[in-house]
Amino acid sequence: MTQTSTPDIVTGSPVRLEAVSAPGQPEVTPALEELYRGFEKELLVPLWTEIGDLMPAHPRSRAVPHVWRWEQLRRLADRAGHLVPVGRGGERRAIALANPSLGGRPFATPTLWAAIQYLMPGEDAPEHRHTQHAFRFVVEGEGVWTVVGGDPVAMRRGDFLPQAGWNWHAHHNATAEPMAWIDGLDIPLQYVTEAQFFEFGRDEISDAERITPERSRAERLWGHPGLRPVSAGRTTAPGSPLLAYRWEHTDRALADQLAVEAEGFGGTVEPGHAAVRFTDPATGADVLPTIRAEMHRVVRGAETAPVRETGSSVYQVFDGSGTVTVGEKSWSVTRGDLFVVPSWQPFSVRSEAGASDSDSGALDLFRFSDTPVFEALRLDRTHVEGTTR
Amino acid sequence: MTQTSTPDIVTGSPVRLEAVSAPGQPEVTPALEELYRGFEKELLVPLWTEIGDLMPAHPRSRAVPHVWRWEQLRRLADRAGHLVPVGRGGERRAIALANPSLGGRPFATPTLWAAIQYLMPGEDAPEHRHTQHAFRFVVEGEGVWTVVGGDPVAMRRGDFLPQAGWNWHAHHNATAEPMAWIDGLDIPLQYVTEAQFFEFGRDEISDAERITPERSRAERLWGHPGLRPVSAGRTTAPGSPLLAYRWEHTDRALADQLAVEAEGFGGTVEPGHAAVRFTDPATGADVLPTIRAEMHRVVRGAETAPVRETGSSVYQVFDGSGTVTVGEKSWSVTRGDLFVVPSWQPFSVRSEAGASDSDSGALDLFRFSDTPVFEALRLDRTHVEGTTR
Amino acid sequence: MTQTSTPDIVTGSPVRLEAVSAPGQPEVTPALEELYRGFEKELLVPLWTEIGDLMPAHPRSRAVPHVWRWEQLRRLADRAGHLVPVGRGGERRAIALANPSLGGRPFATPTLWAAIQYLMPGEDAPEHRHTQHAFRFVVEGEGVWTVVGGDPVAMRRGDFLPQAGWNWHAHHNATAEPMAWIDGLDIPLQYVTEAQFFEFGRDEISDAERITPERSRAERLWGHPGLRPVSAGRTTAPGSPLLAYRWEHTDRALADQLAVEAEGFGGTVEPGHAAVRFTDPATGADVLPTIRAEMHRVVRGAETAPVRETGSSVYQVFDGSGTVTVGEKSWSVTRGDLFVVPSWQPFSVRSEAGASDSDSGALDLFRFSDTPVFEALRLDRTHVEGTTR
Amino acid sequence: MTQTSTPDIVTGSPVRLEAVSAPGQPEVTPALEELYRGFEKELLVPLWTEIGDLMPAHPRSRAVPHVWRWEQLRRLADRAGHLVPVGRGGERRAIALANPSLGGRPFATPTLWAAIQYLMPGEDAPEHRHTQHAFRFVVEGEGVWTVVGGDPVAMRRGDFLPQAGWNWHAHHNATAEPMAWIDGLDIPLQYVTEAQFFEFGRDEISDAERITPERSRAERLWGHPGLRPVSAGRTTAPGSPLLAYRWEHTDRALADQLAVEAEGFGGTVEPGHAAVRFTDPATGADVLPTIRAEMHRVVRGAETAPVRETGSSVYQVFDGSGTVTVGEKSWSVTRGDLFVVPSWQPFSVRSEAGASDSDSGALDLFRFSDTPVFEALRLDRTHVEGTTR
Repeated sequence: MTQTSTPDIVTGSPVRLEAVSAPGQPEVTPALEELYRGFEKELLVPLWTEIGDLMPAHPRSRAVPHVWRWEQLRRLADRAGHLVPVGRGGERRAIALANPSLGGRPFATPTLWAAIQYLMPGEDAPEHRHTQHAFRFVVEGEGVWTVVGGDPVAMRRGDFLPQAGWNWHAHHNATAEPMAWIDGLDIPLQYVTEAQFFEFGRDEISDAERITPERSRAERLWGHPGLRPVSAGRTTAPGSPLLAYRWEHTDRALADQLAVEAEGFGGTVEPGHAAVRFTDPATGADVLPTIRAEMHRVVRGAETAPVRETGSSVYQVFDGSGTVTVGEKSWSVTRGDLFVVPSWQPFSVRSEAGASDSDSGALDLFRFSDTPVFEALRLDRTHVEGTTR
Repeated sequence: MTQTSTPDIVTGSPVRLEAVSAPGQPEVTPALEELYRGFEKELLVPLWTEIGDLMPAHPRSRAVPHVWRWEQLRRLADRAGHLVPVGRGGERRAIALANPSLGGRPFATPTLWAAIQYLMPGEDAPEHRHTQHAFRFVVEGEGVWTVVGGDPVAMRRGDFLPQAGWNWHAHHNATAEPMAWIDGLDIPLQYVTEAQFFEFGRDEISDAERITPERSRAERLWGHPGLRPVSAGRTTAPGSPLLAYRWEHTDRALADQLAVEAEGFGGTVEPGHAAVRFTDPATGADVLPTIRAEMHRVVRGAETAPVRETGSSVYQVFDGSGTVTVGEKSWSVTRGDLFVVPSWQPFSVRSEAGASDSDSGALDLFRFSDTPVFEALRLDRTHVEGTTR
Repeated sequence: MTQTSTPDIVTGSPVRLEAVSAPGQPEVTPALEELYRGFEKELLVPLWTEIGDLMPAHPRSRAVPHVWRWEQLRRLADRAGHLVPVGRGGERRAIALANPSLGGRPFATPTLWAAIQYLMPGEDAPEHRHTQHAFRFVVEGEGVWTVVGGDPVAMRRGDFLPQAGWNWHAHHNATAEPMAWIDGLDIPLQYVTEAQFFEFGRDEISDAERITPERSRAERLWGHPGLRPVSAGRTTAPGSPLLAYRWEHTDRALADQLAVEAEGFGGTVEPGHAAVRFTDPATGADVLPTIRAEMHRVVRGAETAPVRETGSSVYQVFDGSGTVTVGEKSWSVTRGDLFVVPSWQPFSVRSEAGASDSDSGALDLFRFSDTPVFEALRLDRTHVEGTTR
Repeated sequence: MTQTSTPDIVTGSPVRLEAVSAPGQPEVTPALEELYRGFEKELLVPLWTEIGDLMPAHPRSRAVPHVWRWEQLRRLADRAGHLVPVGRGGERRAIALANPSLGGRPFATPTLWAAIQYLMPGEDAPEHRHTQHAFRFVVEGEGVWTVVGGDPVAMRRGDFLPQAGWNWHAHHNATAEPMAWIDGLDIPLQYVTEAQFFEFGRDEISDAERITPERSRAERLWGHPGLRPVSAGRTTAPGSPLLAYRWEHTDRALADQLAVEAEGFGGTVEPGHAAVRFTDPATGADVLPTIRAEMHRVVRGAETAPVRETGSSVYQVFDGSGTVTVGEKSWSVTRGDLFVVPSWQPFSVRSEAGASDSDSGALDLFRFSDTPVFEALRLDRTHVEGTTR
């Protein structure tokens, strides 16, 4: 890991202005050319040549909709498991989605990082901490414990495990099987805003941290509905103190929501579409300051209304199959597949049996997005087709 | 103005991975090369090749410290005044600072836009609105009125004029002299987060909006210290309803602060360094959701302690002269000069008589920054050399 | 129910001033007497005769510590069950604790109402709503459903059931046994601040509301740890949307807290003293805007540190036995007993086997208090003996 | 001043229950009588005998509308100035309004204290502090400085001077004339909630605090519109740091509001009725956590729409004359007169020339209320006749 590289010092002016004849643009004359050369020399760029790109009528994302297939991710991660060691410097065997139109950077969207992480039997990922807010979500398997602030937290299929910035954390695979999961972080956002701090921790966690308890201390203190430890005082650090949201709770909450709807009392987002948000039990707010995380369940045959939102989302199919439409793209998706919804692109999904799929269940979609950023900065907007929601 | 361009569709994979031998990196073998080709094909990028850049020990800004001289800006803006018409499409005769290491983009820092805007005698800039939060600050001259939501607001030397996102606004020069001022916006931030909306307004404002009142309606309703119109109700839109912060108030506040310090009661940031923040009188919070704005006064001979902060700032010298140090750069600055402080670069200033400067006054520095973004996302950090401030 | 009485119109001045010779008091002279008669005539009272009472060095509550025995409450409530019908006008068969020094008013403390409520087999309490915030807590028995906004909510031993102001509610006993529980409200506070509104609802609830589901709709939508229905939007009405906090969760949370402590990781209030607060899952704040509710568990043999707090509390012993000390009073208490802790009186408890008690368990104490009022008005203060907590 | 009295210990039960035949009440039988005797013995009171009083359909204040005439207050205060010394123990020569239906207690309303305070030439009121939030408002005269936290603050006609709880304060009359003003505090509220703390300070303030500056340090640091000292950090103590709101600003704000209305742009509460609220410049919230303060201006001939609000207000006529209607009461009022508006009583005012009044100006009304308490506890309600405001 190289922490010492510095930004390139540019020689000569990086500003290049071309005078063009176009509506809304000044007439191209030698005098204008001379003016533009003056701008370049003084490192200046006029608004009138840039406004269409910088101030569009609505967000036109640099990212494009794209789908990544779990089968390929799983295969490549396993291959990396055999070729790439995990240790200090590289830190994690994490392989990130690179949106095809973001220049080859490991950015799923302009603000969100999504990666598959992979640990071989008995492997450890060393301890470190960083300001980037992170979570893990498990689409299959079990056997890894993430140790956050010395608290070992089991990871199993369906679990959502947030880990707010600046908490020490390490992972270890305590079993005889490799395990894969996805990591979500706000790396691209902090890369742009330049807020990142990072520290290495211990190379090895202690034996006491290698225990593999069924429930973490965090869950025992914070995992009871509507109950807060009195010892916690009035304020807490940013991000949720609850380090695991177990699938059994999420699954039951979605089933309950659909049952309430079936009784005629609403409670769902729209007919046949239940959804819960993972929240910080100390505040009721989003689970991480920069990341919203939700689980959606769309019953077989139902279709969601197209929604546009400022900000971007990454989805992973947790269960079931269906057809996803993002802007002008449409894909059939099945368990583990990941796809991105860029800002202001209309998104809808239809739950349906997959090609090689005989189950009769619903389509369960895990989603994470940068919405808390937009709400905090009061830049959030939502448009649902055919409604005023 | 072109609002129709779309992101380029990339053909072939934009991901390019090079296997290198380095500490923390996997051994370069044919198998690794094959794995990397697999990553490229599936649009994947491993963390271990990128972590040094993405997760540095502390922010290492892609921006560099730089100074722009007012004399040059003023000269080129005036030249543009004679060559480039103001009208629909180009919208504004605004010329933006382009940080030398941000690829020629009109971004003073990764999140902030700063431009000189210029209106010739009798000219109008047409009405529009956008989600980008904006302000104007006047270092010299007068004669332009900005019409915000139909309320004409005079602009004069020393005035700070915020204009929160999504308010209609136009400008007109009601005098026989050209006028220059600076615009600050969060264009780069919204460019990255992709939250922008934009609408054209009327091409011409009404005669009633061409009046040139001494005080705007906004000032008459909101410009009285600690007093709130009862009619305003409990909540207001994002951003300050006060559309002008007049120099006479700012100047007096700074002088008062130094007088209180001189009497032995503190009140300043540090000895000889007074500073006030422009706030939303409805909430006491920053004047705009994404931009902090302040005026600093450093008395002749005083030097400020070096401060590092997450996030970036743009400064303009309002009055006086001095020497500014940002990281390893140092410049003599005088009235109108603009400079940028990238994230986490130490910044200090010494107030001193300029080369061709005979005044005995203080150095007055106008500053704007992206700090509210960092505070809202709980990513703010400050380090003051020699203190725990 | 009489809603029409008006405040008495006083004839003659109610002000009576007596001139006395005392330190800090003016000299008693005929002129002073004449002045005081003038004050009386004009309905004026000088501060100097009242300051010791109005502005004491610390809160000296008008309430006194007192204990009510559950055995007596239960007996009298049952007697009332046979003599006093429940119906429109009287509204509820609720019998309130009257602090002995609050003039015979049904006020447990100056701000809190606590009552035993009793429903005979098959009885209904008619629907109404009021601005007073309320909850029910069940120390024994089961069989009553409270119907809040049309949602039937089962009531069983150990359950805490909040019901924020202005929600329609009725109760019905669906079984062949009478049932008792306690009601807590902010009646005295609203009586003093004069904020009360009250409306009668339907005399009879519908058959659909007479179903007796295991779990209410509120629990199915809001009763999952850290999970929020996405359909709920960003804001909710005052008070918790979760209408039942079940004993199984509370009990487990307390046991977990003690287990974490036993492993050496703290989490309790103090050694051997676990406590959880009932919170609004939408905000993490207190379950009701004016009432805090908590369950405390003190292990056999442990003793809590004496605590003084501004504001008052009512406790009910849920299980176990012990000795309670409030100011200069001390009592042995056992299941169901209720006692009050007036403002700023030191409170501590020792968990111990009761006289006729062979269990080896902990002392479980349900507590409710007016603390949210003090926190909202920034008047909260706490002093823990021997610490700076 | 006596700080040692304790609440009376009641002997025998204070509870007295009378069985009466009435709608909604149980049948009066010997068994019921016996039950009631049981209640009395156990200090219990049934809801059904009290509900009409405790849970009315809407607030029916125990307070009544009443007016106190400034001429009488001024006369009696001056008389007290000659008879009653100011010093340690009595603390202040303050004479409080006693609402005629609140039992002779010095409570203007159930939550608010209002008093005339009076200092003779050269007199000092000794330093103390208390949790009660307080302010001073000056209807006539000048010459007293209030010294808050060592900062001398001049008091002049029209000035509003808040002083949040727990700040040390003393007063001294630096002139050769006596001076009167009104004090407003939340004494009755804190008396009921039992949150009060009180400490004596120094008997004499220092010579340095006897200076009589035109502007206080507080005003110099916080008295500039929309400007915040950067040195203040992000949070402040409860209550406004600005210790004086000068009449020149209040007067101008009201005049400006009426001018904006006259130009057709609204801004007033209703036609001819301007109003400003005194706010904490650090937060934009009410100037004190428990007290709202406002100045209203009703132009000659205008009449305000009747308003009902939860909570109570005290008004003082600052200038002009008019007719005030509170519930079924109506009075002609003129400069200095004080009156109270109990909770939920409709209030309106007509501005008109007084009997012995030849001025042509507006009616200026200073108002303070307990509204922040109701908003914090989410118990606020407002009804404006003929509107949905």
